[in-house]
Amino acid sequence: MAKPTLPQGTRDFSPDTVRKRNYILSTIRTVFELYGFQPLETPAMENLETLMGKYGEEGDKLIFRVLNNGLSDPKNSEKARVAFENTLQGKNDRNLTERALRYDLTIPFARYVAMNHGQIVYPFKRYQVQPVWRADRPQKGRYREFFQCDADVVGSTSLLNEVDLAMIYHDVFTKLKLDGYELKINSRKILAALAELCGGSQKMTDITIAIDKLDKIGIEKVKQELLQKNISDHQVSTIEKYLSITGTNEQKLARLSALLGNSKDAEKGIRELQFIIDKTYKTGISLSIDFTLARGLNYYTGIIFEAKAPASVQIGSIGGGGRYDDLTGLFGVPNVPGVGISFGVDRIYDVLEELELFPGELEVSTTVLFFNEGNTDAVSHLAHILRHRNISCEVYPDADKEEKQFKYAKRKNIPYIVTLNTDGVNYKLKNIATGESQILHTEALAKFQFGQTRS
Amino acid sequence: MAKPTLPQGTRDFSPDTVRKRNYILSTIRTVFELYGFQPLETPAMENLETLMGKYGEEGDKLIFRVLNNGLSDPKNSEKARVAFENTLQGKNDRNLTERALRYDLTIPFARYVAMNHGQIVYPFKRYQVQPVWRADRPQKGRYREFFQCDADVVGSTSLLNEVDLAMIYHDVFTKLKLDGYELKINSRKILAALAELCGGSQKMTDITIAIDKLDKIGIEKVKQELLQKNISDHQVSTIEKYLSITGTNEQKLARLSALLGNSKDAEKGIRELQFIIDKTYKTGISLSIDFTLARGLNYYTGIIFEAKAPASVQIGSIGGGGRYDDLTGLFGVPNVPGVGISFGVDRIYDVLEELELFPGELEVSTTVLFFNEGNTDAVSHLAHILRHRNISCEVYPDADKEEKQFKYAKRKNIPYIVTLNTDGVNYKLKNIATGESQILHTEALAKFQFGQTRS
Repeated sequence: MAKPTLPQGTRDFSPDTVRKRNYILSTIRTVFELYGFQPLETPAMENLETLMGKYGEEGDKLIFRVLNNGLSDPKNSEKARVAFENTLQGKNDRNLTERALRYDLTIPFARYVAMNHGQIVYPFKRYQVQPVWRADRPQKGRYREFFQCDADVVGSTSLLNEVDLAMIYHDVFTKLKLDGYELKINSRKILAALAELCGGSQKMTDITIAIDKLDKIGIEKVKQELLQKNISDHQVSTIEKYLSITGTNEQKLARLSALLGNSKDAEKGIRELQFIIDKTYKTGISLSIDFTLARGLNYYTGIIFEAKAPASVQIGSIGGGGRYDDLTGLFGVPNVPGVGISFGVDRIYDVLEELELFPGELEVSTTVLFFNEGNTDAVSHLAHILRHRNISCEVYPDADKEEKQFKYAKRKNIPYIVTLNTDGVNYKLKNIATGESQILHTEALAKFQFGQTRS
Repeated sequence: MAKPTLPQGTRDFSPDTVRKRNYILSTIRTVFELYGFQPLETPAMENLETLMGKYGEEGDKLIFRVLNNGLSDPKNSEKARVAFENTLQGKNDRNLTERALRYDLTIPFARYVAMNHGQIVYPFKRYQVQPVWRADRPQKGRYREFFQCDADVVGSTSLLNEVDLAMIYHDVFTKLKLDGYELKINSRKILAALAELCGGSQKMTDITIAIDKLDKIGIEKVKQELLQKNISDHQVSTIEKYLSITGTNEQKLARLSALLGNSKDAEKGIRELQFIIDKTYKTGISLSIDFTLARGLNYYTGIIFEAKAPASVQIGSIGGGGRYDDLTGLFGVPNVPGVGISFGVDRIYDVLEELELFPGELEVSTTVLFFNEGNTDAVSHLAHILRHRNISCEVYPDADKEEKQFKYAKRKNIPYIVTLNTDGVNYKLKNIATGESQILHTEALAKFQFGQTRS
């Protein structure tokens, strides 16, 4: 067989990468748990109808569908043939594909909440860290399998939830030593007020979509796009004024209030932003109001968040979220409001790599390698004792040349190696990084305090 | 929309279950790392040809294939139609399904080793904990999505690897407090010697398959099956003698030696078993030779293992593994020998549940709930301080009735609740389990030593 390959857009994660990614994920999980969020996991496959129609027409096309098994059974073939023709027409048909792969974590969460509505204790604070799959065209930084990492509170309209979520961003990035990250906040209610003033609420989506592109295409193209959507010169000029509001958070709120006048929606949005700014004020978190923040997704209705990587790296958004009014209406359970955030794990990984923020000890695999010099009984016994002290160690399994064993230790980043001393009784412990060696008898080695370890 | 459902054979894992399963997985991971094994993760989807033909005809039928995207594009439709007809004929065709879901962790690992052969440092000790998918008919204890948890060493023929793997079973089950588990060991070389004596090496598979069923169907049916495979009465009687060897490990080896005479294979197998018994002798691990152990999989060539749940639970095998000569030959890289084991995580979960071996603190979610009594500024500040001490806590987000907040704490298994004392200055801290309360001022509460917590 020819050398095997991986499907396009998928990756193997080798040990170093897994350790680094787990460092990010376990930092996030720890913070989620400190705020009372609980882990949930849902299956990779969902029923086709659970996923279809939830992500827009473009999204539907990117869902990976799973072929039904048993199609070659004659009792299934005829139906499958019809179903296949339907599929060629762009329709979904359960007789060909009953199941599909998870496209995000939000819809499976909504499905879970709808299915377990009676048993769930509200407010339900869950987090979920699992891979999702999308048939996107692969490109740099975009994969067909990637991790999502979400936290949501459902069943509570209190803005204290938003405050907690902002604090979670802050705590995670602080623990990851990601100085200079930015946390931006806005309210969809303010965007609604702006739309009301500029063409009516039916223009809300057009305006949001255009504003969402500001970062990428610049103000002139945003204005062009708005004009094309039949928004008048005067209205576009109001939107431009809105987008150019600057100042401290307090100044921005005052200027916005002046611009949008006495709109009820604007008032509500301003009150919400003020509340969150006030409540986070004393905690050292820096939260900045950004009226250009729009977030593409239609289902947000209140506060929206975006976390940005430090400006020194060209990576942009590393997280986002917001409040929605109705998570589970799609699944027949109305009136479950909530608010959620997510972390862009792949991008955070790239940021930490670029800024060299991964702790050095993540590169250490095993702490101690005992060389194999023939009879391994004594060193195996020592290894046994060290493992009981939670120090990871290996006895090299084959009596290979010393050189080969040394190379193994080097390439595996093992900081300490142990060989039998020339006296045949004591051991020589060598710290590879410093090059220093010391001669120790068995008891001393068994009790030795190793530095730079992971376990 | 009707109430949503889950695909057959799949499960949601609610917070309690995730925590318990993570307790098992993190125990196993910790032990793997103590022995120098490193984490690897591979994608859920593999190329179809990577998986097909590796699991036998029955296995192939259970592989979930992923439908190609873009079939409704006219430039793909014609090829897809042909491919679909091929699929109905039971053939695989990349024009319909290029990808399939991982069926186990061994073949993806082999694919990884073959792809990265030049870069890997051997011996390569990897562990992998990921879900796999099989289109099996769902039944009690059998799912279409389940976790596998494997550790393998490749690139070394040393039996010290087998010793380490036996120790890993022992250490994991000891940490999980699973007293009374059994660890069985045999060698495929001994089964080869037995086959040599009873019809020749071409009978090896028939004999192994029949012996493998002994537990389920009993000795009489095994004998019938062997006779049907054209093994003579006399040979079947030798196999029966082999299967009825009892005694201590030493006695078993002596009796086997007497039965199989001076077969080279038997001698090698006996030497291997003796080696492992000797090397594990002083570590407190109980390893028993079991000649009825065969393991179904054809690729094993040396030592084979099986771990069994304590006899008090009717669950049977909770792990298994063995040595193979050639992991990656299928992928064009010959001569990579190895040995591996796996843990049956779902079954271990059921055993721990039945024997009530999960630690009580896994049921605790958050440690402290601060009641919301209107103004939450002071308690939010306290929560902030406690979180810095790694104590998980929540401020109830809504100013709901006390009763409702109390119910939330109870149902979420939160051990401590805090309310404002009637003096309006101090706090009342209540331990829900004991029913005891104490009045504390802010500083005392901020420093309080909470018992029974997880974080």
